[in-house]
Amino acid sequence: MIPVKGYAAQTPETDLAPWDFERREVGPHDVQFDILFCGVCHSDLHQIKNDWFEGIFPMVPGHEIVGRIVKVGDHVTKFKVGQLAGTGCMVDSCRVCENCKEGLEQYCIPGSTQTYNGLEQDKKTPTYGGYSNSIVVNEDFVLSMKEGVDLAATAPLLCAGITTYSPLRHWNVGKGHKLAVLGLGGLGHMAVKFGVAFGAEVTVLSTSPKKEEDAKKLGAHHFLVTSDAEQVKAAANTFDFILDTVSAPHDFNMYLNLLRMNGVHICVGVPPEPASIEAFALFGGRRSLAGSSIGGIAETQEMLDFCAEHNIVSDIEMIDIKDIQTAYDRMVKGDVRYRFVIDMATL
Amino acid sequence: MIPVKGYAAQTPETDLAPWDFERREVGPHDVQFDILFCGVCHSDLHQIKNDWFEGIFPMVPGHEIVGRIVKVGDHVTKFKVGQLAGTGCMVDSCRVCENCKEGLEQYCIPGSTQTYNGLEQDKKTPTYGGYSNSIVVNEDFVLSMKEGVDLAATAPLLCAGITTYSPLRHWNVGKGHKLAVLGLGGLGHMAVKFGVAFGAEVTVLSTSPKKEEDAKKLGAHHFLVTSDAEQVKAAANTFDFILDTVSAPHDFNMYLNLLRMNGVHICVGVPPEPASIEAFALFGGRRSLAGSSIGGIAETQEMLDFCAEHNIVSDIEMIDIKDIQTAYDRMVKGDVRYRFVIDMATL
Repeated sequence: MIPVKGYAAQTPETDLAPWDFERREVGPHDVQFDILFCGVCHSDLHQIKNDWFEGIFPMVPGHEIVGRIVKVGDHVTKFKVGQLAGTGCMVDSCRVCENCKEGLEQYCIPGSTQTYNGLEQDKKTPTYGGYSNSIVVNEDFVLSMKEGVDLAATAPLLCAGITTYSPLRHWNVGKGHKLAVLGLGGLGHMAVKFGVAFGAEVTVLSTSPKKEEDAKKLGAHHFLVTSDAEQVKAAANTFDFILDTVSAPHDFNMYLNLLRMNGVHICVGVPPEPASIEAFALFGGRRSLAGSSIGGIAETQEMLDFCAEHNIVSDIEMIDIKDIQTAYDRMVKGDVRYRFVIDMATL
Repeated sequence: MIPVKGYAAQTPETDLAPWDFERREVGPHDVQFDILFCGVCHSDLHQIKNDWFEGIFPMVPGHEIVGRIVKVGDHVTKFKVGQLAGTGCMVDSCRVCENCKEGLEQYCIPGSTQTYNGLEQDKKTPTYGGYSNSIVVNEDFVLSMKEGVDLAATAPLLCAGITTYSPLRHWNVGKGHKLAVLGLGGLGHMAVKFGVAFGAEVTVLSTSPKKEEDAKKLGAHHFLVTSDAEQVKAAANTFDFILDTVSAPHDFNMYLNLLRMNGVHICVGVPPEPASIEAFALFGGRRSLAGSSIGGIAETQEMLDFCAEHNIVSDIEMIDIKDIQTAYDRMVKGDVRYRFVIDMATL
């Protein structure tokens, strides 16, 4: 076994603290890479706190992981020692269900293996995430990054990036479309960048007028203050798509009514309560409410290549790992532009 | 003004009873037809009882209206006296919004004029429906029917028919698709007929095992008892589409989980309470919850022509208008196969 240092929550009630644990030896198809940076996702906090479901403890969070390869298994063909590598939200899947076969491992029917707070495909070995100094991953779930990219700012692409890239690609959002981005956090700021890159006319929807300047800086064409009833009324029936990145409770019906004919409200955030949807909000224009979950491995690689080509990275604030609790506190208040990334050298 | 006999609810608390009222004179673009048959839709009862919103009283329900033309306006070009004619849920719309221009008058942005319990485009003249002996409608909202069709059984096509035909066409449901029809009432039985006619593999979902024989008679290939947890579990991730015709409260999340990758749950019923949707039910396969409302006038004509060509009509029980309250009572219990139609000669 390989000894690893990390930060873990021992229970949902305790703060993260240093924890030594072990990872499996590098198998024939495995890649081991030393972690240089790891993004801090809001879902890290949701999972530590058991907000969605009962977690597996001790829990080492982190699924926006980038680093440099230190060892590869005998049968590994895609990677070499010394290369940059990354891992997102999944480290394995069943590989044989119809969704896996289509490269949509995130929708694996028996269930993909989450990078942390999950179980390996043996359904008993827990997984530990990227708030740690090294990781071993099957090569099929390792992403490659080009030398020269801003590695720290690339880390968040592995969750915040692919989670917004994938639905925009799936629904072919682009030229001629009016796209509303709901929420301007880690996911929202990436949604704006991708929406603009794909040629859509992008409006940021936010309760806070203070965010207008930031939205425009990120490339958004318009800004709509959703606490202003007049602005909301004027925007009824105008958007083709809403990409909803909000994981706090919110009024879906108000937003659905902003969609024009055949409009799609795509949820990528997970609020704690079920959405309450009025039938007439959907009927009033053959509208849809859809959910989208990260992206498959092939699409994640496509996204990373697209970002490298178009100089797209996340806007980040680098932190020391000892400051993770402060970062969580600020993240909950929305006080981060737009993603914390842990410098793993501080571990 | 034209004197008309009908049945009306004077208030939400009173039963339907005979009521004499007047319709406008036949204008240059109007068609007047004597009503021979009118279907009884569950929404008639919802509207009389103010279940969805405050109604306009006295209320003459009925929006599945067929009959024979007795007068046409000077500028009417599409219809002649003596022809069969019908009218569904709408009798007018703004005609200039982007949805009207696309032939989707049911999604008219300022609001189409409902056949009853609505206001004309002057926004003040109330409309009265088909539980009456004659009606005057602008020719653009009159449908034509071929001589020789079973006219009484054609009446329900004007709401139950188009409401199920339109979403199946919009989502291109057909060969290679697994379609689940939820609820086997007036709408559900038409959904089965259309699904089969379009080449889909059709499963009826019902809480009641007693309906299996009926479902198969209508052409359904499979039947799933949703109160049987084992059957539900086995059907997870299998359907491409669910056409949900249920207007009683139900557990959307259970049904969403029956959809495979990219599956769409299409609602055409209007339950009294908002739907409670768990994020993970949508995320677990990029699923969508959509709403669809009747169909445009051109598509309604297309549906009637398709039905005439393929010998598709509604299965009906003919009633005397004096028995309307008994029919409502039976309809609420689901005790009708599958649509009551009023023989207007009994008025």
